[in-house]
Amino acid sequence: MNNITTPAIKVIKADTSKLKDVDFNNLAFGANFTDHMFECDFKDGEWQTPTIKPYGNLVMSPAAKVLHYGQAVFEGMKAYKDDNGDVHLFRPQQNIERINKSSKRMAIPEFPEEIMMEALKQLVALDKDWVQPGRGNSLYIRPFVISTQVGVSASPSNAYKFMIIMAPVNAYYTGDVRVVIAEEYSRSADGGVGAAKAAGNYGAQFYPTNLAKEQGFDQVIWTDSNEHKYLEEAGTMNVFFRINDTLITAPTSDRILDGVTRKSVLKLAERAGINTEVRKLTVTELVDAAKAGELKEIFGSGTAAVISPVSAFSYKDVVYDIDKQDDSYATKFKNDLMDIQYNVSEDPFSWRVKI
Amino acid sequence: MNNITTPAIKVIKADTSKLKDVDFNNLAFGANFTDHMFECDFKDGEWQTPTIKPYGNLVMSPAAKVLHYGQAVFEGMKAYKDDNGDVHLFRPQQNIERINKSSKRMAIPEFPEEIMMEALKQLVALDKDWVQPGRGNSLYIRPFVISTQVGVSASPSNAYKFMIIMAPVNAYYTGDVRVVIAEEYSRSADGGVGAAKAAGNYGAQFYPTNLAKEQGFDQVIWTDSNEHKYLEEAGTMNVFFRINDTLITAPTSDRILDGVTRKSVLKLAERAGINTEVRKLTVTELVDAAKAGELKEIFGSGTAAVISPVSAFSYKDVVYDIDKQDDSYATKFKNDLMDIQYNVSEDPFSWRVKI
Ligand SMILES: Cc1ncc(COP(=O)(O)O)c(C=O)c1O
Ligand SMILES: Cc1ncc(COP(=O)(O)O)c(C=O)c1O
Repeated sequence: MNNITTPAIKVIKADTSKLKDVDFNNLAFGANFTDHMFECDFKDGEWQTPTIKPYGNLVMSPAAKVLHYGQAVFEGMKAYKDDNGDVHLFRPQQNIERINKSSKRMAIPEFPEEIMMEALKQLVALDKDWVQPGRGNSLYIRPFVISTQVGVSASPSNAYKFMIIMAPVNAYYTGDVRVVIAEEYSRSADGGVGAAKAAGNYGAQFYPTNLAKEQGFDQVIWTDSNEHKYLEEAGTMNVFFRINDTLITAPTSDRILDGVTRKSVLKLAERAGINTEVRKLTVTELVDAAKAGELKEIFGSGTAAVISPVSAFSYKDVVYDIDKQDDSYATKFKNDLMDIQYNVSEDPFSWRVKI
Repeated sequence: MNNITTPAIKVIKADTSKLKDVDFNNLAFGANFTDHMFECDFKDGEWQTPTIKPYGNLVMSPAAKVLHYGQAVFEGMKAYKDDNGDVHLFRPQQNIERINKSSKRMAIPEFPEEIMMEALKQLVALDKDWVQPGRGNSLYIRPFVISTQVGVSASPSNAYKFMIIMAPVNAYYTGDVRVVIAEEYSRSADGGVGAAKAAGNYGAQFYPTNLAKEQGFDQVIWTDSNEHKYLEEAGTMNVFFRINDTLITAPTSDRILDGVTRKSVLKLAERAGINTEVRKLTVTELVDAAKAGELKEIFGSGTAAVISPVSAFSYKDVVYDIDKQDDSYATKFKNDLMDIQYNVSEDPFSWRVKI
């Protein structure tokens, strides 16, 4: 598995495994971590020795910049076990490129792509017993970068830590989700950091999402911050709308995360001959379609949930229910994606990367 | 100094002081910390025992939410030593209320105001030898709250840490600053978290600020994200414009931090009979005033820099220089503020709080 073009990753193995202590039938999402983690520090202008070591706590200054200025980015990806016990990643190159794009926007030095790929492969291989078999089960992989320079002046850090931690997970959402269309709060601005997986984008959504929850909804569908007129994306998912038999999703922009699942769905839709439109969709159009009985489906797409069907949306205090479709696109794409991820089907686009 | 209405703060004193190791003539801004810090954990739905203890590192899970979701807020304030050796805070109640306002927007539980005030007083008193005498010298005080729950699901934390750390500082900026007016990037959106001192707001500015630096400027003056038409604030300062003898500053909104220095300058201007206008100012108006020779001054206001005169601004690649004024408002307000902060003048508004 070693690749001669990348520098060797130093590996320190854990003495014992925590695997036997984990109840795989009752996993809280992303709260149990595997035996090992990957760590690489940036200092003196360069990335130091990449290291796999036992999962454990960090010792951090209370003045570390990440704690004060949110100079941090992350990724979310998964490893899947097939029926032969082989483990696969899904389009990892996409996440590798995206974390570096996020880093650039956050003034964080980019991490060498080949080392990241190699780290992912070695780390997953080492902890592969943590990837549980069974459709829906997976190993959630969280690469992230934090700024570690000590000091409370609001300027970019000169020290960083790139890490990968991993947590076994079951399916993320159980059941359909009910969403609220944002009318007052916003997720990101033109010229802001919405297109980056920057830490602060997520904390900023918790309060408005809590307000939605208090009203009996699960998530917010964000609209543009200027006019709250165009539908953008959800907290950790891109969003698709099926009006009659046309599948519509917002174009990516500097406000919207360019989701790996989103682009995979677009490919699968194309392959299936489904009419797709990547364009701005107004809330008015959505409401009109719902009223006319033309809105067949809404679903979210994201690594954590794969495909999340939306059963109702609320706008200006009116709740619009969405009936289940027999020929659900959400179900189709979820199956198509999972068939590829779990090595049940062919892999026509070469999305799987076997560990 | 103990106040019977507040619970006792547990105090663990440091064995030795690092004071003698510090070169107070060569302080990097906010990079040396005093002997003690304040810490209070939130768990099981409540704030636990407030504690002052020796300054030191934190042990943190790599999956702590603050590192992934930027659910964190902070404050910046200062303690000043007067010629009698007495130490004063400046309008601390403002910062206490503001951090809780920030917390609310970031779905963080608010911290009891009285405990925060008591913690500030006791902590500064304990480390008062770190407050160096001399105008411009001060002790920078950084209260902050971080989310500490272990887990990589994007939802609010159930555990937090409220801390106060302190660093001796000299004046923040040396000399005048040259600024760029934002035309492409933005700091915050309507309905976003710009009015909160949320960690992620700061990291998000580093990249565009770096671009400004590469062009020979120090800071960006942010404009509204919708049209880049209205002047808003700088990275860590509110901004004032003097056109002829009228002082103009943007109104606060959910995009702009409600600065303590800003509101103090407005009070001082009122007292001095200076005509002030709190209103939206367009970039066009600013450029026209500069061309007509009516733009007399631009200055920033903030705790770190107090008042920062701006010597030039750039817009659409044209640089507009601003000549020094004999009757500079910037100089006047800086002197007025520092006279109050260093107990040189009366304190007509009761802004000083003696430790
Ligand atoms: C804001 C946001 N949108 C969309 C997505 C979906 O992206 P992906 O399909 O790459 O997981 C995510 C995250 O994972 C996200 O955080
Ligand atoms: C974004 C921003 N604007 C303005 C200010 C000035 O506020 P204050 O005068 O309270 O320090 C600060 C910070 O301190 C800030 O972070």
